[in-house]
Amino acid sequence: MAKWVYTFGEGKAEGESGLKDLLGGKGADLAEMARLGLPVPPGFTITTEVCSYYYANGKQFPAGLADEVEAALGYLGRSTGCSFGDEHDPLLVSARSGAKISMPGMMDTVLNLGLNDMAVEALAKSSGDTRFAYDSYRRFIQMYASVVLGIEHHIFEEILEYYKETKGVTFDTELSSGDWQKLVADFKSRVERTLGKPFPQDPREQLWGAISAVFDSWMTPRAVSYRRLHSIPGNLGTAVTLQAMVFGNMGETSATGVAFTRNPSTGAKELYGEFLANAQGEDVVAGLRTPQYITEAARIVAGAQEPSMEAAMPKVFAEFVSAADLLEKHYHDMQDMEFTVERGKLWMLQTRKGKRTSIAALRIAVDMTNEGLIDQAEAITRVEPSSLEQLLHPAIDPDAPREIIATGLPASPGAASGEIVFSASEAEDMKNAGRKVILVRIETSPEDILGMHAAEGILTTRGGMTSHAAVVARGMGKPCVSGAGAIRVNYAKETMTAAGLTFNKGDMLTIDGATGQVIKGIVEMRQPELSGEFTILMAWADAVRRLGVRANADTPRDAHVARKFGAEGIGLCRTEHMFFEGERIVTVREMILAEDEAGRRAALAKLLPMQRADFTELFEIMSGLPVTIRLLDPPLHEFLPRTDVEIAAVSEAMGILPEKLAQRAAELQEFNPMLGFRGCRLAIAFPEIAEMQARAIFEGVVAAQRKTGVAVRPEIMTPLVIDEAEFDLIKACIDRMAQAVATEANETIAYSLGTMIETPRACLRAAELAKTAEFFSFGTNDLTQTCLALSRDDAGSFLGDYAAKGILPANPFATIDQEGVGEFIEIAVARGREKRADIKIGICGEHAGDPASIAFFEKAGLTYVSCSPFRVPVARLAAAQAALRYKPGK
Amino acid sequence: MAKWVYTFGEGKAEGESGLKDLLGGKGADLAEMARLGLPVPPGFTITTEVCSYYYANGKQFPAGLADEVEAALGYLGRSTGCSFGDEHDPLLVSARSGAKISMPGMMDTVLNLGLNDMAVEALAKSSGDTRFAYDSYRRFIQMYASVVLGIEHHIFEEILEYYKETKGVTFDTELSSGDWQKLVADFKSRVERTLGKPFPQDPREQLWGAISAVFDSWMTPRAVSYRRLHSIPGNLGTAVTLQAMVFGNMGETSATGVAFTRNPSTGAKELYGEFLANAQGEDVVAGLRTPQYITEAARIVAGAQEPSMEAAMPKVFAEFVSAADLLEKHYHDMQDMEFTVERGKLWMLQTRKGKRTSIAALRIAVDMTNEGLIDQAEAITRVEPSSLEQLLHPAIDPDAPREIIATGLPASPGAASGEIVFSASEAEDMKNAGRKVILVRIETSPEDILGMHAAEGILTTRGGMTSHAAVVARGMGKPCVSGAGAIRVNYAKETMTAAGLTFNKGDMLTIDGATGQVIKGIVEMRQPELSGEFTILMAWADAVRRLGVRANADTPRDAHVARKFGAEGIGLCRTEHMFFEGERIVTVREMILAEDEAGRRAALAKLLPMQRADFTELFEIMSGLPVTIRLLDPPLHEFLPRTDVEIAAVSEAMGILPEKLAQRAAELQEFNPMLGFRGCRLAIAFPEIAEMQARAIFEGVVAAQRKTGVAVRPEIMTPLVIDEAEFDLIKACIDRMAQAVATEANETIAYSLGTMIETPRACLRAAELAKTAEFFSFGTNDLTQTCLALSRDDAGSFLGDYAAKGILPANPFATIDQEGVGEFIEIAVARGREKRADIKIGICGEHAGDPASIAFFEKAGLTYVSCSPFRVPVARLAAAQAALRYKPGK
Repeated sequence: MAKWVYTFGEGKAEGESGLKDLLGGKGADLAEMARLGLPVPPGFTITTEVCSYYYANGKQFPAGLADEVEAALGYLGRSTGCSFGDEHDPLLVSARSGAKISMPGMMDTVLNLGLNDMAVEALAKSSGDTRFAYDSYRRFIQMYASVVLGIEHHIFEEILEYYKETKGVTFDTELSSGDWQKLVADFKSRVERTLGKPFPQDPREQLWGAISAVFDSWMTPRAVSYRRLHSIPGNLGTAVTLQAMVFGNMGETSATGVAFTRNPSTGAKELYGEFLANAQGEDVVAGLRTPQYITEAARIVAGAQEPSMEAAMPKVFAEFVSAADLLEKHYHDMQDMEFTVERGKLWMLQTRKGKRTSIAALRIAVDMTNEGLIDQAEAITRVEPSSLEQLLHPAIDPDAPREIIATGLPASPGAASGEIVFSASEAEDMKNAGRKVILVRIETSPEDILGMHAAEGILTTRGGMTSHAAVVARGMGKPCVSGAGAIRVNYAKETMTAAGLTFNKGDMLTIDGATGQVIKGIVEMRQPELSGEFTILMAWADAVRRLGVRANADTPRDAHVARKFGAEGIGLCRTEHMFFEGERIVTVREMILAEDEAGRRAALAKLLPMQRADFTELFEIMSGLPVTIRLLDPPLHEFLPRTDVEIAAVSEAMGILPEKLAQRAAELQEFNPMLGFRGCRLAIAFPEIAEMQARAIFEGVVAAQRKTGVAVRPEIMTPLVIDEAEFDLIKACIDRMAQAVATEANETIAYSLGTMIETPRACLRAAELAKTAEFFSFGTNDLTQTCLALSRDDAGSFLGDYAAKGILPANPFATIDQEGVGEFIEIAVARGREKRADIKIGICGEHAGDPASIAFFEKAGLTYVSCSPFRVPVARLAAAQAALRYKPGK
Repeated sequence: MAKWVYTFGEGKAEGESGLKDLLGGKGADLAEMARLGLPVPPGFTITTEVCSYYYANGKQFPAGLADEVEAALGYLGRSTGCSFGDEHDPLLVSARSGAKISMPGMMDTVLNLGLNDMAVEALAKSSGDTRFAYDSYRRFIQMYASVVLGIEHHIFEEILEYYKETKGVTFDTELSSGDWQKLVADFKSRVERTLGKPFPQDPREQLWGAISAVFDSWMTPRAVSYRRLHSIPGNLGTAVTLQAMVFGNMGETSATGVAFTRNPSTGAKELYGEFLANAQGEDVVAGLRTPQYITEAARIVAGAQEPSMEAAMPKVFAEFVSAADLLEKHYHDMQDMEFTVERGKLWMLQTRKGKRTSIAALRIAVDMTNEGLIDQAEAITRVEPSSLEQLLHPAIDPDAPREIIATGLPASPGAASGEIVFSASEAEDMKNAGRKVILVRIETSPEDILGMHAAEGILTTRGGMTSHAAVVARGMGKPCVSGAGAIRVNYAKETMTAAGLTFNKGDMLTIDGATGQVIKGIVEMRQPELSGEFTILMAWADAVRRLGVRANADTPRDAHVARKFGAEGIGLCRTEHMFFEGERIVTVREMILAEDEAGRRAALAKLLPMQRADFTELFEIMSGLPVTIRLLDPPLHEFLPRTDVEIAAVSEAMGILPEKLAQRAAELQEFNPMLGFRGCRLAIAFPEIAEMQARAIFEGVVAAQRKTGVAVRPEIMTPLVIDEAEFDLIKACIDRMAQAVATEANETIAYSLGTMIETPRACLRAAELAKTAEFFSFGTNDLTQTCLALSRDDAGSFLGDYAAKGILPANPFATIDQEGVGEFIEIAVARGREKRADIKIGICGEHAGDPASIAFFEKAGLTYVSCSPFRVPVARLAAAQAALRYKPGK
């Protein structure tokens, strides 16, 4: 017979941390803490299997559950000396959701369950504090009505605000016992008016209502959307944990708080947290009162007046420190803990793996390895590769002038600039339109998740370091400033005011998540310094990874950055970018507008020395590392001017008639340029272009070798190939040029020739291509476009709708579409290797910097990935993680 | 030891018709005729293996060849009583090329080989005709100089023309023996002046020069281009046949002619041909003199004055008729024969399978089957499917007024209109630009082949029914009028004059290949009548084919044509075409411009009755045959006006601001519309469109069923699918509408839902798609575009260059790219059938009407093809041929 309920408390538990599937993270870790002998209020967890049963059976509970719950309530009663539903000695419980994977804020909590008109009096008596009892009751009504009965939270806040206004008071603490009694009555009558029936007085009705509400919240749109965003399966279900209440708001010897075993911002090995005396848990998270520091050291650094917990409650503090120590050692990871002190007695309410910034993740991983808590392989998996990019991106230049309009909490490091938007949906829209935005909210809520993803940075005017905005932003690796209370936001007018200035939607704003500064306009940024831990972890990663990591670099600047970040070569040098620079574009236009081959050759002859100089410099910078050069790829009309004004200017500069220029541009215009006259089709039609490029490369090789004495071996690749005959024709042309330059220079020139694989047909023809191609490089951008018949430039208008409807949930241009494009890659790899076993196979599309895609490329057996220079560390770490994951025997 | 030379003559031969690989068509059939006891001048054939040796060994001949040739010359000498190279009794020979596959006009011929200053005198003596001897000598010099020595033919024509002018004569026949002697001297000195050495007098030097020239002509660009166009392998090589000369120009008892065993234009069982008395073979082909009819019946029908061969040479005629009879029965096919009569003696010079019009091919195939010469399966293979389309296309309406400007020979049936062009290359360019042209030439040559392919029809001012233009046009199934001598063409000015009118390049012209009429402007056409043979052969084809044949039909007119041509249903009804008709476009634009779903629904409600009426009518016409309807496919901006003028007009009609219209049109504009917001993406974003279409279909089903009493079972398909989730969402929507309409009408509605397969990803996901899709239909146009990353609208600018360079020699939009797109189809078929064994799989792209592609679809195991209505008979026949080819055990 199924067991639906697992109890815990008093140093023992039926569950354990290994049962997260069944008990959810929260329930399993509470059981584990109980087993570890930590002070955990007794409770029990209703399993996720009940949730599955509930949804599979029209929201009915399984037979036997009620009996098991009653038995567990009996256990709680014995353990606490109270009794659930008893009018004189009522047992009060909290109900919390808990899925296997933490979904912060997505599920709802109800505290003080079991209170009613009778029990509140008993609570007043047992606590000796009527005010506390009625405050607890009104909190319960408010929470229960909101979470279970569907009455919006703000309705009660408004009643409370109105009451305080008429009383002329500002803070809740100014309200008396009688005030809370009056408010409880107001709250109850408001519930009755809204629902047409009174607030439930039966504790068991309350209990089952709360359990149902937790299960129901599993399928709310926001939960479904969060799971989709994080690829969490929907059939996991949530557990419900019911736990005897302990109260942090029973006077000044009571408190509630949250803490991390290490600093989640810096990773420093120091207890880090906040607490509020005489408060319940949600008071800390809500950020309505400014919390106090846990440690004396932190208080001193911050210059805060309110005493630290270390000073105010030294015995409890000591007990908490050893609990934190125990938990970190037990879990081998930094813990995020919630606790309550009830009249001097410490209760641990939760522990879980703590979210951390990427800097902190790096430091903690390296420190813990050095401390012997984890090994290097484990350290590698502890850092989310994507978060590294944040470390590498520019921060605000300390010397740049900045007009600070407000300062909030440095909630998530990094700096960002963008246009102000005031709603998450607008952030999404702007992002889809290619704009950069700062999402400004009074506070954020789970509904805002997608908008936070879309924003460059997040600014809130309320909430602390552990507020929703701060936690989520750190998880995302986005800059965030929280609790910037000096800023007033008017959602209706879409304005914000600060420092006497009014900002409208669309105005530029900069936030500095490292300092908490909010700055007017755009501020100059500077390159970040890389920490020692970064270098150490990268070295560990490099030692285990199998995939090579190169960079896509077109310019000397790119190449320098690439080398600095550890690129092992250039995997894609787009030569067309060289065609746009400075005066060259004029010569390129001459080439395109030439009447015949002779005219083209004349213009190309002028381009030759420029391209040669480009390549020479690149080869020198890369100093013997491989450099993969792609022949000219884009449609020629991209080089021509478009508007009448541009055409007039260019035609004057070139000394030709504007009509002729306009006509040639019109001739070159295409219906579907992505599928048009581009890629190797240019080299087939105009071999003289490929000849010039090949000559420039080989002359560059000779020049760089003579200058540096280091052998250069360029890899030249042909774009948009669909048939081996194309490649072979171009190969013959390049081979001829190599021979010619070698003869002229009287040197031998080593090089290899390969092909891009970026059309479905090329994937099928990989064996034939590999007969003569010495390497492949997957162009996954174009391969995604052709495989899915999906224009990257046009898909924005409907891809969002697709994701919302569960079609292609991951953007296929960000993360490789394994079921489609992925299979094409596998086909091409298999066929290419069948013909040429040792063929080098890389990938140089956007996906080369995406960790999920890199895991696939590792599995598919590619030789290297080549990504943008800033993504190189991301790729190195992701490649190491993938190597560990797909290690033989794993 | 290899045998390089095969002799024939005097009723026996070393070769036979089965040795075409070795002896070429001409040599093998001459050997066969000799074996049949027909009068063939003795000769010998140098094998294609010598050609292969020649090219493999730097144009050297194999050892032993010279000896074998000498032995064969000896045999000829014994047989004719002359001796090659003898001054007194010279043996003269012809040298002709002959490949396995007939390449008309592509290879060169030299007659009268062995003539020199001595031999000509001997010939004069032996023939008793000095004029004949010198005329033969000058022909030899002219031909030899042109073919072997590389001196252009027209140089000698000019000398001749100039000589005639100075003599004041018009016709060659007016020239005397002395004139020819003078001209021989002029020709020889011209050769010597050009080459710096005299015309070769040594018969063996002449002989080996001619042999080399034949082999060399195998690799001329025009030969290479012809082979590429006709997919003839380049390594076949050509044979050389040397044969004792016989002379048709030895006076009025001599003659030369060509004839077919049946009428090549109509297929009628009647000897059909032309001859010229006192002439050599090239005189007939050149069309300089008007030939006489072979049979008296033909002469009478034509009302010709010159006597027929039947009347002029009754004994020779009778002998020729029985030879023709024997050959046709022997080869079981209509023969194209060349013969010469030398002083009353018939000599057969060639027989080969006769080219014929498609009407003739049909009639001959059916007649021969009825005569017991061939069986039905053979008859099916005897007609080129593509040629049938010509029979089905409109001919000139006999009641239409027509301004006839000239009448030539009805060289190839069918009628065509187009812009006049005067060069083959221009015809190609215009075709590539999407224009229809009539190629007008004085005469055509093999260099014009590609331009003839590009033209709608061909008009020549010189040449007979067997001229190059006529033969090639019939082979291509293109309308052709030849020898319209009243028309003057001026290539330099690009004009033609006729009937006192001057026509410029680009002027519209119509030709009627059935009557030989050349008509000014465009003339109304009418539907063709289908012959009884057509119906019979189609019935035979239908009996053997496995593939179903449906039509792509969007309108009632299409549907009627489709049924008339034997379509077994509609395989593709493009609903968007209905959206453009008449007033509807305004409503469609309202729908697109609507601000929200409610606005779209309002416009769609207006479209519903129109679409319903469309479908009702289609269902009625198709009367129970399957009708496959594709949901709306094109990008919405295709429905919006483009130019300012259009926008102004539409906005006024719709009562909205032009700015709004322009803005919405701009919003909908895409970079790559082929890969953009279209196909099922529309139905995902705007399900209300799919709902309206589904409702219109189902209401149409109900209406048609009630009206006709015949059950209708529509097949609805979803375009541009890339993932099963798309299909399933749309399927749910359609199923809902079916249920709704069924309930409203209180009827059950049968239908099936399927998906287009037109993206590479859909091919890979075929198994998943087949879980819910009941049928597939390959959209090979889009599949080709995506698989090859090749925009059909843009590829024209470089595909020609590709074909010229041997990349993708066949246009992948005309004939399925088997190595790429074909493999995708095979993958999808295998995966789809794996999941749903009996899934119906069709193809509805352009390729469905292409015989080569149909052969592939048969092999791939598709269920049906669906092509344009006029291609339905083509597809039926091609499917039958494919079924015979891939029949189990074949």
